[in-house]
Amino acid sequence: MVSLTNIRKEIEHFANYSTTSVGVSRIAYSKLERDSHEYFSEYMTRLGLSVWRDSAGNTIAEYRTKNADGTPCLATGSHLDSVPKGGRFDGIVGVVAAMEIARVLSESQTQLSKPWRFIAFCAEEGARFGQACNGSRAIAGLTEAHHLDALVDETGISMSEAMRAIGLDPEQIAESKWNPDDCAGFLELHIEQGREIEAESLDLGIVNVISGSERFLVTVLGEPAHSGGTPMHLRRDSLLTAAKIIVSLDEYSRKPENEGVRITVGRLKTLPGSITTVPGWVEFSVDVRDFDSNRRSRISEEVTEIICDPGEENGTKVTFEQIGNTHAMALDQEIIDLIQAVANEHSIRTKVLPSGASHDCQIMEHVTSTGLIFVPSVGGHSHMPSEFSSFESIHAGVRLLFASLFRMDGISLSLRI
Amino acid sequence: MVSLTNIRKEIEHFANYSTTSVGVSRIAYSKLERDSHEYFSEYMTRLGLSVWRDSAGNTIAEYRTKNADGTPCLATGSHLDSVPKGGRFDGIVGVVAAMEIARVLSESQTQLSKPWRFIAFCAEEGARFGQACNGSRAIAGLTEAHHLDALVDETGISMSEAMRAIGLDPEQIAESKWNPDDCAGFLELHIEQGREIEAESLDLGIVNVISGSERFLVTVLGEPAHSGGTPMHLRRDSLLTAAKIIVSLDEYSRKPENEGVRITVGRLKTLPGSITTVPGWVEFSVDVRDFDSNRRSRISEEVTEIICDPGEENGTKVTFEQIGNTHAMALDQEIIDLIQAVANEHSIRTKVLPSGASHDCQIMEHVTSTGLIFVPSVGGHSHMPSEFSSFESIHAGVRLLFASLFRMDGISLSLRI
Repeated sequence: MVSLTNIRKEIEHFANYSTTSVGVSRIAYSKLERDSHEYFSEYMTRLGLSVWRDSAGNTIAEYRTKNADGTPCLATGSHLDSVPKGGRFDGIVGVVAAMEIARVLSESQTQLSKPWRFIAFCAEEGARFGQACNGSRAIAGLTEAHHLDALVDETGISMSEAMRAIGLDPEQIAESKWNPDDCAGFLELHIEQGREIEAESLDLGIVNVISGSERFLVTVLGEPAHSGGTPMHLRRDSLLTAAKIIVSLDEYSRKPENEGVRITVGRLKTLPGSITTVPGWVEFSVDVRDFDSNRRSRISEEVTEIICDPGEENGTKVTFEQIGNTHAMALDQEIIDLIQAVANEHSIRTKVLPSGASHDCQIMEHVTSTGLIFVPSVGGHSHMPSEFSSFESIHAGVRLLFASLFRMDGISLSLRI
Repeated sequence: MVSLTNIRKEIEHFANYSTTSVGVSRIAYSKLERDSHEYFSEYMTRLGLSVWRDSAGNTIAEYRTKNADGTPCLATGSHLDSVPKGGRFDGIVGVVAAMEIARVLSESQTQLSKPWRFIAFCAEEGARFGQACNGSRAIAGLTEAHHLDALVDETGISMSEAMRAIGLDPEQIAESKWNPDDCAGFLELHIEQGREIEAESLDLGIVNVISGSERFLVTVLGEPAHSGGTPMHLRRDSLLTAAKIIVSLDEYSRKPENEGVRITVGRLKTLPGSITTVPGWVEFSVDVRDFDSNRRSRISEEVTEIICDPGEENGTKVTFEQIGNTHAMALDQEIIDLIQAVANEHSIRTKVLPSGASHDCQIMEHVTSTGLIFVPSVGGHSHMPSEFSSFESIHAGVRLLFASLFRMDGISLSLRI
């Protein structure tokens, strides 16, 4: 039986793998992320599962019973990394769900039709390197070794260097790829990170489409100058250019024809950073998300036009590079229907909704059919220390996930969940 | 005779007291600033001058001859600190001028009517603590010990802590104050940090008014939120509010009725600084400069209105504190006339012009009558690594400064400068 106490205990345990006391900071390809994977690995090994780490750093545990020999697996899981100063639930909920389901299976020695794989993905958050879902991208075969050199964090460390520093071998990244024939489906449990479920006082959500994201790193080159000695008309103020871009991007995202587009400038750095010097250099990130694949190329083109527009007017030069690119993904309708049917049988009240955030299951669609269950986020808070989901709602989510996997396994439920 | 070779050598020497190879970074109340004062002190001691350090950290060297006993002094000098990643000339030119004049006097054993004081001011730049001219403010008696606790740099170190760390005693700051009766005038040589002299192909400038500055530290409090999960209309984006303020301040400064006002946002920090999180917190500096004292209160009021305006609209909260406040100052007309007359006698072509930047002489006006001579800045560059003034123009500046001090000393020039 799925235990709320266990779920709470393990979620609280993972929060300790963090650098700050203000929220959870467990950054992609950090030692702390690695340590949390070790914990997951030891937990699953103790339950008797076969556990391995792939070349990307994902940790995978497989529960096998005799009936299942030679059949494609079912898989579930989520990620263990966080954004800087993030919350305790993003990603972790899906990993703890996997741990709890494995515990119940192992303790009851349940016979299944298929092998079940429990995955702790690594480096899902794009906060460090721009690109999101790096662990699942490796499983889907979307990443080649040379890509890992090109992704660089703000301190200048490349993803391949970060991987080597924690004992991974980026050269072998291709070996993480799964053969689609080996997998019969993937389900993920994740927090909503929005407030749509809460707004309708429902229990859980079932996702039908995940928005795509494009990410840009923008550099504005102006000229540092004395704040007292330099008249306004002689300035080449890179921060002014950046400010105009930020305001324009916000106005653009709110146009009726762009309803649903989400544009975020989350990181901005300026040099020399002196009170009495006109900023000569600014760098900032732009994250563009959209559910609608059809208007993708229009939005992308218009956003880059807005980025480049005010540069010259202020005597500055704007350049940008694309640092992330993930397509919007419609999830499998059969799986949505299956999860909804199971929820109805268990009197769990759900709504079907889109996801603004990227998730590993969106990448796993390249391997197999996937489904995504959302636990409501209190107040919609996420990527911040106040991120919270009630343990009762997480408990319901784990039960729905478990029962849905059983249904996909094809055996009738012989276990009380 | 004033030596161009010496001037060049000493300016180049001071550039070595720096943390970066990209420009000069010798921050107020740092170890490096202290080391450069030590060098000044040893140089003046070797020439036979009386040298002391006051409680604020200013280094003062006095050249005394018998005739001068009991008469009020003349003084000259400038500062040894720099902004981060600044240039080799700002401040240093006036200190090296003082060193060169002291050398010529000492080697020629010239008899003067008054004692001459050569001052290396400390902590003139407001880049670290917001408040500018801290060394001269102490000499003018404008700073009390408790002010030094309230001025805090961006790492959280107060000015008094920074002073203690390099062996100064901030509790004794009041002892640095000069009695106005002891001083008969102060002249400073400084780089222009603008391009007015260059534009007219003149040799030097004579300043008639120095603009005042008001500085604010603005904090915008919003709410960090997931960049994918949070629709635009539910965001409380602190960086968007900051961007709107920056754009509005720029527009305001360019209004015809505000001609001459210079507004700069030079430093901006944002948290949590993640690509995928809406910024929940932004802090930035605003530096407001104006020559015109009459419109000071109007400008100040309107700027703070602009700062507070867009906060609520974006669901954010804007607060600000004033971290610097220096009045505009008209310099002594008699001294301007004296310098101009001396320049004409030496066939040095000058123009009278205002200064947008703050200078120690503006503070020294609280003690005595002051004058300010400008050396042209090539291309107007300042507070940046490309700051440059030709050594020929600096040489001319030192000669005009020296001859003007002689004129103020009241003895006829018996020395070839």
